[in-house]
Amino acid sequence: MNPSLFPQHVIARKRDGHALTREEITAFVRGATDGSWADYQLSAMLMAVFLRGMNTAETAALTDAMMRSGVVADLSSVRAPKVDKHSTGGVGDKVSIHLAPMVAACGVAVPMISGRGLGHTGGTLDKLESIPGFRVGLSMEEYRAQVGQVGCALIGQTKELAPADKKLYALRDVTATVECLPLICASIMCKKLAEGIDALVLDVKFGAGAFMKGMDDARALAQAMVDIGNAMGKPTRALLTAMDQPLGRAVGNALEVAESVACLKGEGPEDLMDVTYALGEQMLLLAGVVKNTGEARVRLAKSISSGAALAKFREIVAAQGGDGRVCEAPEALLPRAKFQRELRANKAGWAAEVVAMDVALAALQLGAGRSRAEDAVDPAVGIARLVKVGERVEAGAVIACIHANDQARLETAAHMLGEAILIDGAPVTAPRLIEEVI
Amino acid sequence: MNPSLFPQHVIARKRDGHALTREEITAFVRGATDGSWADYQLSAMLMAVFLRGMNTAETAALTDAMMRSGVVADLSSVRAPKVDKHSTGGVGDKVSIHLAPMVAACGVAVPMISGRGLGHTGGTLDKLESIPGFRVGLSMEEYRAQVGQVGCALIGQTKELAPADKKLYALRDVTATVECLPLICASIMCKKLAEGIDALVLDVKFGAGAFMKGMDDARALAQAMVDIGNAMGKPTRALLTAMDQPLGRAVGNALEVAESVACLKGEGPEDLMDVTYALGEQMLLLAGVVKNTGEARVRLAKSISSGAALAKFREIVAAQGGDGRVCEAPEALLPRAKFQRELRANKAGWAAEVVAMDVALAALQLGAGRSRAEDAVDPAVGIARLVKVGERVEAGAVIACIHANDQARLETAAHMLGEAILIDGAPVTAPRLIEEVI
Repeated sequence: MNPSLFPQHVIARKRDGHALTREEITAFVRGATDGSWADYQLSAMLMAVFLRGMNTAETAALTDAMMRSGVVADLSSVRAPKVDKHSTGGVGDKVSIHLAPMVAACGVAVPMISGRGLGHTGGTLDKLESIPGFRVGLSMEEYRAQVGQVGCALIGQTKELAPADKKLYALRDVTATVECLPLICASIMCKKLAEGIDALVLDVKFGAGAFMKGMDDARALAQAMVDIGNAMGKPTRALLTAMDQPLGRAVGNALEVAESVACLKGEGPEDLMDVTYALGEQMLLLAGVVKNTGEARVRLAKSISSGAALAKFREIVAAQGGDGRVCEAPEALLPRAKFQRELRANKAGWAAEVVAMDVALAALQLGAGRSRAEDAVDPAVGIARLVKVGERVEAGAVIACIHANDQARLETAAHMLGEAILIDGAPVTAPRLIEEVI
Repeated sequence: MNPSLFPQHVIARKRDGHALTREEITAFVRGATDGSWADYQLSAMLMAVFLRGMNTAETAALTDAMMRSGVVADLSSVRAPKVDKHSTGGVGDKVSIHLAPMVAACGVAVPMISGRGLGHTGGTLDKLESIPGFRVGLSMEEYRAQVGQVGCALIGQTKELAPADKKLYALRDVTATVECLPLICASIMCKKLAEGIDALVLDVKFGAGAFMKGMDDARALAQAMVDIGNAMGKPTRALLTAMDQPLGRAVGNALEVAESVACLKGEGPEDLMDVTYALGEQMLLLAGVVKNTGEARVRLAKSISSGAALAKFREIVAAQGGDGRVCEAPEALLPRAKFQRELRANKAGWAAEVVAMDVALAALQLGAGRSRAEDAVDPAVGIARLVKVGERVEAGAVIACIHANDQARLETAAHMLGEAILIDGAPVTAPRLIEEVI
């Protein structure tokens, strides 16, 4: 091997603040994939990257090398434009579940591969798995066939996809190198770009309930990902959206699927639909099937009013082995928790705060999420009928409904939720949800 | 365990530029010693320290924790003041071998534990082992007894001594985190302070043949080590000395022992004796057995002229199983190489350069040093009778004598040495050797 690509040498170059060459970055990623770099060398490099940073060219090279560390889906046989959406994650964020069929119903293919990850509530895969029979573990061949035939597949990451990311992420988690923009950016983008997409829309959350708390940090991450996507020839746009209160009114796996089905029937909560439309508009624009956002919104709205989006969702569910009747009677078909407890306002006023992280922790404690990768989630539990910030509330009105399978956990969650929701005597304006498009 | 002492948390604190607490540093060092921190966590931490630095209090805490990771010699039963000397290493640096008995002959105990390390020529231990029978692997108990009875022991590091340093040094070597002042400082000082000393004198080399090339870097390292020693209650002083040409006229294990014996007989080269006296003066001063450097020099010179230093060396050699006759007839007793080749000046002039690193590489290629830890050294080979910079040379005069056990290696070394020694037509001043005392 070229001595200038020895681990010590590449690490020293980044340590000293140099921009790494594509060859050096490729050597690093290959080392992570084939084990030729020891874990302690990878982690020293990750810390050097954390503290010295990476420019756009380096981050693009890193993303590319990580993407190529495994299988890159070849969807060239799919004739429709292929656009995915990715969210950095927020409480109650079930947008993918109804947005994907809406966009697919508009003639744009949506190849969507999601990670499971850790979280206070489950991820998209966990939510989908609350549908009886739904299978997220398709092979890459099944995935490609379904995107071609149905126009959409919602599947989980396979081992073949970006193995370098899996390795590096596990190390970052235990070496205090998670919160590093180029590394976050490459980790997200390498997996999305391996899906075989033509374009990508990102939902980058900011606020107390988001991974990135500050708007400036979120904007920087959004800009970095947009730059990388564009640099790699995949037109990319990002929305900056607020994550201070949960998105929609439901938090918990089956409860969120039910809310997504409601969205597909035209009965979705306003905030959730605002974000859904804004993301869908950009997807249709990047796919080139509409001329402007106005036209896009009309198409998306029509996909709902015509029933086409709901039908597309039924088609996806059926194609992945799920029970399509979830579209007609979600409450009857989805798992239902043993106990329901309504929480009521003890005074009249306006909802001033519904703290996303507290609601998430209440859902976690009910069993809706996992704190360790090997934990199982309880699909039935969670919180529904959440009040939204800015809403008028009468004394005794329902401000949340807890779904629990355990009485003691229900009590704790009720207490936590009571602290999370603040009713104020003075009127409160609903907060702005979509900050900007990058 | 206190969650604030979890590896990720401690790493993140240093990553973010905070000064670590003594508890955090102790947790890190304990993690390195007992394996409770994974190697990848240790190396992430080392890189964070490399890039964020450590202040004097942190470096002192690190040194202390590393020292306490193993056995700390208890020499309280030795009534004489106990002072050691440590050199950061240079070509031809055999000072310890004759300085230790000189100082011991003046009534100051010299407990000296050396590392073997990598080097172009052997370390002090390798040199001593060229004396037939000499045993450097004393137990800590034998070491203590000998320091008490003889006033000096010259031994190798045991496994019980600062195991955290051994672990961290091995990781630093492969993660590009070697050249880091607080880490270098703690690594040197933890082992020296574990010897059971009262005070310490350091010889910090600078120049092309030294670990620290630049004088400013060397001064910073010297100052940092002096600060740490003093902070830990062990009065410490450092000399900054030049390392551009080899120290003395011999490079190679047995050849250097012979030169040290010559020093003890009052026949040492001037540059070598200058450094020896300067270091010895500081040792006697810190031991409190003299009032000033003038008095110290008189005492040291008398230890040679009276034969006391040579007798002390014989006593040390005998105590460690070696053949004391090395003091009378070193050439006869020490291993001798098969071939000797004199190198002669091809013109008259003045020695303008004797490049230390080139001489070292010639010695390495003869077999005098090791490039991997598991290599054995050849005690007999090396270079003797080296010309010194500034000396007048007549055409045909000997400027070096190569000792080799292999004809081919001899030829290569002769070629290398020819390149290393530059004779100039114009007079050259002998360079300044001792830059300052810190």
